[in-house]
Amino acid sequence: MGKVICAGLGPGDPELMSVRSWRAIQGARHVAYFRKAGRKGQARTLVDGLLPDTAVEHAMEYPVTTEIHFSDPEYNRLLSAFYDQWADTLTEISQDEDVVVLCEGDPFLYGSFMHLYTRLQGRAEVEVIPGITGMSGCWTASGQPITWGDDVLTVAMATLEEDELAARAQNTDALVVMKIGRNLPKLRRALERAGRAQDAWLVEHGTMAQQQVRKLSDVDGPVPYFSIVLIHGQGRRP
Amino acid sequence: MGKVICAGLGPGDPELMSVRSWRAIQGARHVAYFRKAGRKGQARTLVDGLLPDTAVEHAMEYPVTTEIHFSDPEYNRLLSAFYDQWADTLTEISQDEDVVVLCEGDPFLYGSFMHLYTRLQGRAEVEVIPGITGMSGCWTASGQPITWGDDVLTVAMATLEEDELAARAQNTDALVVMKIGRNLPKLRRALERAGRAQDAWLVEHGTMAQQQVRKLSDVDGPVPYFSIVLIHGQGRRP
Ligand SMILES: C[S@@+](CC[C@H](N)C(=O)[O-])C[C@H]1O[C@@H](n2cnc3c(N)ncnc32)[C@H](O)[C@@H]1O
Ligand SMILES: C[S@@+](CC[C@H](N)C(=O)[O-])C[C@H]1O[C@@H](n2cnc3c(N)ncnc32)[C@H](O)[C@@H]1O
Repeated sequence: MGKVICAGLGPGDPELMSVRSWRAIQGARHVAYFRKAGRKGQARTLVDGLLPDTAVEHAMEYPVTTEIHFSDPEYNRLLSAFYDQWADTLTEISQDEDVVVLCEGDPFLYGSFMHLYTRLQGRAEVEVIPGITGMSGCWTASGQPITWGDDVLTVAMATLEEDELAARAQNTDALVVMKIGRNLPKLRRALERAGRAQDAWLVEHGTMAQQQVRKLSDVDGPVPYFSIVLIHGQGRRP
Repeated sequence: MGKVICAGLGPGDPELMSVRSWRAIQGARHVAYFRKAGRKGQARTLVDGLLPDTAVEHAMEYPVTTEIHFSDPEYNRLLSAFYDQWADTLTEISQDEDVVVLCEGDPFLYGSFMHLYTRLQGRAEVEVIPGITGMSGCWTASGQPITWGDDVLTVAMATLEEDELAARAQNTDALVVMKIGRNLPKLRRALERAGRAQDAWLVEHGTMAQQQVRKLSDVDGPVPYFSIVLIHGQGRRP
């Protein structure tokens, strides 16, 4: 009898992985990870040099990423069938042996593994190893604490409507926005309306080799998937 | 020439420390940590068995914790002098050797080290190693993901006013509240006013040996300093 172990990988730098995840990966017989078809995948790349050569690899390739909008019912149908199928496969493997599922950042914060997790309930033994979030990696990279005293921190996705983003930015001390990509122009307008565009930072590939930290107002052109926008809180400090 | 290394310790379980923090602590010549006078201190306890016997220990004892209210100017004056003095001491040590400062969770999320960090700017070389936050440890312990799809997550301190807490609870998908302690009755009233008390969980000592996870409505009596209240988001899930 084995189990499904979801190993949080942290923000990118492999040394920021927890000791527990590190050990699980080093000892893995089976390893599974999400990726876009035709790519190696960020999670898999992160464990290069750590994963034993003998590990059996299971690449879970999304049937769709941004080709169909997430409001289209077809998007939901395709993804749901995909998660169903992989939950079956992982359940089967875990009857005999452990399988380690790789997850960027912390698995329970907007992670894809969550969709397998709900489907594995009552079928397989599951262990989730938390990880350092991408946002922690990014605010550390920015060289400024994110929250002081009783600052309120809001974490939101740039996929929200512009009005909602503007209201959230206006009504918080510290702000973290994820899933930037194509949503950057909309997010920028929202931050301007909230009067907070000048305080925003963009961190690309936080803690990875290609890390870049800039004021959002200095950014021009497209940004990668691994990008986070931050506004630091300015609360009480003795 | 040495440096000041702030090592994020993660939520409590030592194996949830990052590989980088683990190594920094194992190789420490000097180690510094905050504690309440007369206590061993949570940060120090966490590295028992990991810290070399030869490490020189610097216990940074708070001159005040809850004896004076934080709105009293005397509170600020005492703490400010305390941070000034320790910034001087750490600067001095780091002229010759590295000194590792232990920090629970992630140092840049409401961490005490931040007050030293600002004072060390331009005086000592400082490296901050992020950590798994207490909140990640707690939502993992709760066995339920904290955010789905485009859920908004609000992180707040229970030291806020009741009205503010109620408004925050009403106007978010997922909620994390820290610094519970004596503020629990106020927080409970706020969650009730927001109609969300039934969805709240209390996690005490997340990932530590004494971990306890309960519905907030089942909790009665005082709760320890290491307690977090959570409301899980219920967003989009294929
Ligand atoms: C689906 S969410 C997954 C979050 C992940 N579970 C975590 O805990 O960080 C993906 C988003 O995380 C953000 N992200 C994660 N790691 C990052 C990093 N190292 N640098 C910049 N952004 C990152 C990006 O905004 C990206 O769009
Ligand atoms: C001053 S804040 C420091 C937060 C820390 N820097 C972090 O990243 O988690 C202290 C609060 O964190 C929360 N906390 C931290 N670790 C915890 C744990 N393992 N279990 C429960 N609460 C925790 C408690 O609410 C406590 O009052």
